[in-house]
This record gives sequence, structure tokens and C-alpha cells, in this order.
Amino acid sequence: MDSANFGNLQDFAELERAIRWAFENSMKGISVDCVVFGFHDNQLRVLCLKVKGSDIWSLPGGHIQLNESVDEAAYRILKYRTGLDHIYLKQFYTFGEVNRANVRAMVAGLKLPFPPEYFETRAVSVGYYALVEYSKVRPVLDFMSDDIQWIEPDKLPSMIFDHHEIVATGLKSLRAQIDHLPIVYHLMPDTFTMPELQKLHEAILGEELDRANFQKRILSYNILERLEERRTGGAHKAPFLYRFIPEKYQEFLRSEF
Amino acid sequence: MDSANFGNLQDFAELERAIRWAFENSMKGISVDCVVFGFHDNQLRVLCLKVKGSDIWSLPGGHIQLNESVDEAAYRILKYRTGLDHIYLKQFYTFGEVNRANVRAMVAGLKLPFPPEYFETRAVSVGYYALVEYSKVRPVLDFMSDDIQWIEPDKLPSMIFDHHEIVATGLKSLRAQIDHLPIVYHLMPDTFTMPELQKLHEAILGEELDRANFQKRILSYNILERLEERRTGGAHKAPFLYRFIPEKYQEFLRSEF
Repeated sequence: MDSANFGNLQDFAELERAIRWAFENSMKGISVDCVVFGFHDNQLRVLCLKVKGSDIWSLPGGHIQLNESVDEAAYRILKYRTGLDHIYLKQFYTFGEVNRANVRAMVAGLKLPFPPEYFETRAVSVGYYALVEYSKVRPVLDFMSDDIQWIEPDKLPSMIFDHHEIVATGLKSLRAQIDHLPIVYHLMPDTFTMPELQKLHEAILGEELDRANFQKRILSYNILERLEERRTGGAHKAPFLYRFIPEKYQEFLRSEF
Repeated sequence: MDSANFGNLQDFAELERAIRWAFENSMKGISVDCVVFGFHDNQLRVLCLKVKGSDIWSLPGGHIQLNESVDEAAYRILKYRTGLDHIYLKQFYTFGEVNRANVRAMVAGLKLPFPPEYFETRAVSVGYYALVEYSKVRPVLDFMSDDIQWIEPDKLPSMIFDHHEIVATGLKSLRAQIDHLPIVYHLMPDTFTMPELQKLHEAILGEELDRANFQKRILSYNILERLEERRTGGAHKAPFLYRFIPEKYQEFLRSEF
């Protein structure tokens, strides 16, 4: 049985068997958690899941199966728990505090049939962040969640374990990265104006940027193409539209990694 | 019994009990490995241990005890396996390929009394790098090693598991970091000239830098103080000596993390 079938199981006993399968075929004491950043209405948001039968929220995460790498686990888990696929994931930090995850206490309040052995040991968690263009993805609920929402990083509800810290550290990593790597372009629509791109950087960095310096730096990467069209309809002079040059962008990413 | 006593054990049976203690009090399936960079004679080197009774070398690494965080484990293991203490360690990447560590095959060739259960599962390893001023530290052999050496990253001997990759990734992380964070100053003596500092950056980056641009960028951090003394004895005009302003340096590090 493949763990990806969980979502279709109706029968509780079968669900229990499926969870046991996952337990017996997973590494103990280690998990992955994904911070999925999305951008919309000039705001940066994080994809959060409400734990079924509780008022606690969590990041999409899960265990690593014995026959998959940690990277592969991150992609599988993100797809399985949110429906998101073909998304750029970057490992950013591994969380290893002794008491970071009181799984037993959390599970006691849930109605899911996890075997007690599932939570015998402390767990270290490998954090990944993902970058998505908000309007292009349609997250879906998994069987462990009541709700799924895009939430602003500074307005997060009560979260399990150290997931507040995981979001904060993921945001710090993202901020450190956009200084020299334009991965944020994953968050942009196909064509965009320079002010729109600047607003995205400002939302991530949490501070205003100088317009001229920003434009100069971004253009120096040589990965943007200015189109003939302009964005019309605004009160100001119509700004030019830009788009990525895919080959240059791939080349730039390769040279950075 | 504390694992830090291993080095003093003479009796093999006692050693076996000590290893079993460490096994029973450690997380399974996860370890840490440290890439210790040192700088000397304008060369960057990595601290490597020769595995006892073999021709294979390894990075200083080990398991995480149940009552310590992953960070704490990294500091304890580095001290225990190399004698190095009070050193800045930075977590840089977690290595999670399925077949990265064929521990069973490695151990078969060793004369150490590890119990078979020690190597039942695959292990994920959390990588840390450390930065040391070569002439200031005196690494010491641990009980699992025949030799300890500073080796150039591009001249590494045969290494266990994926330790070549761990060094390469650690070096890439260090290079990415010095662009906007002067952690390399951990590698410098108390006073130094601008050309000496530039040589360190060039050794880490593996490329030559423009002298004027380098000096301008480094001074813009406002963490260096120019002394009245100059370095004398060279063929050229005597260059000024510099040193860190400790408070400014700490402040700078805080603002970056």
C-alpha cells in the first residue's frame, strides 16, 4: 500500500493499517516540515493546515520513508498534504532542540489512529521552504486536516511544536537569499512591472527599498527581458512589463548553486 | 559513564560497554559531521581523521545523545574527537540520500567493538562547518583515529560515505556566506594587513579579487580598526595593520543572524 492513498481511505480500520504501514516504513526520530511562501495583494503568506479535531495549526510535514531521500520525502509530503506539485523546494535548516516536539501531548487530543510507538522518540525536523505564485496553485485538504489557509507570517495562529520558529527561520533564510539570488521570481506572474517586483522584495524583506538602486541591481542579473507592452490603467505613467528569459534564469540558478 | 571518557579507557571490554552506553543513549538514524576549515600559508585546509585500522579518512562526526540538542551534539563531538573547543560552528546542510552511508561495510574492516544494532538503519547527517585560525589550535587524536591532519579541500584522500560531498557543500556554503558576512575573520590572527585578509578571501573563493574593491567593501562593514603600526620587512611599502573592533563585530554578527 502506498502512503499516497491515505486520502481515499474511508474505513477507519484501513486508515489505521495505512498509518502503521507508514510507521514501519519510515525513519524514526526525523521528519520534514515545509514552509510554503505565497505572494498575493502585495502580501507574503504561509500555507498552514489546521490539525483535525483541534484548534492548532501546523506546517505541512511528515516522516521520511526508508526508500526515499530526505529531499524526495519533502516533495512527496508537500504534494500529499497540500496537493502542490512541481514546486521549487529549498532545504534551509534542521531543527534539533531536545523538547521541540511534544508529539504525545499533541496526539492525545486528536481522533487519528496513530500507534503509540509512532511517538516514542524525540524528532529532529529538516525544514524546507517553497515559493509559489499564490493565484496559480490550489491547495487541497489532506485527511489529517480540517482546514488549509494562506496566513501572514506575523499573524500566525497557535501552531504545534516549534512551527512558529520554523516559519521565522524560513523567512530569515528567504530574506538572506534574495540579496544575491532572485528565487523570488517563482512568486511572480508571467509578466510584471518593476514596481510589482519591488513590492514583492519589500514584502519579503519587511522594509522599503530605493527604486533606482533596486532596478539597477535586478537588471544587472541579466535574466529579465523588457517587453514592448506597458501596464496601462494606472494613475501614473504606464510602466514597462518584464518577463524572465528562462534560459538565462536557469543559467543564473545553476551558477549560484 | 559519560561518553567524553572514551579517550581514557584502556580496557577493550570497558570500551565496548562505553560504546553500548553511547548507542543506548543516542538518537538512531541521525548523526552530525563537522567540516573544520583552517587557514595557513595562504591555503585553506580541512581537518580530517584517519579511521583506525584502515586507509580511509573521515570528518569528525558522531551521534546525538537523547538529552542534547543537535547543536550541542556538534560542539560536544567536535571537542571529543579533535580537542577543539570554543569554536564557532554553523549548521549548513543536512545530508539525506538513502545510500549515503554504508556503515556496515565500513565497520566490517575496523577493529572497534561496535554492536551490530549500531548500524541497522540508514543515517541522515547534519553538517556543520567551523572556522579556526590554524596556528591557534592543537587538534588531538581520539580513540577511533590513527591520524589527524589538515588537508587541502582539493587534495582530500579516500573518505568514508559522502564526506567528499559534505566538504564540497561546506565550502560552497562558506563561499556564499563571505559575500555578505565576514565570518572568515575567525581565521585571522589578532592583527593583519589588508593584503593578508584579501588572500584569505581569495583562498576561500578560489579566485583573485580586485584590491581596491575588496578594501572598499571590507571597510564598509565598519568592524575593522586601522592601527598606527605597519607591517615592516617586506619588499613593498609597509602596509597598515588592522584588527577587529570586537563590539562592532559582535553587533554585525547579531544583525546578520
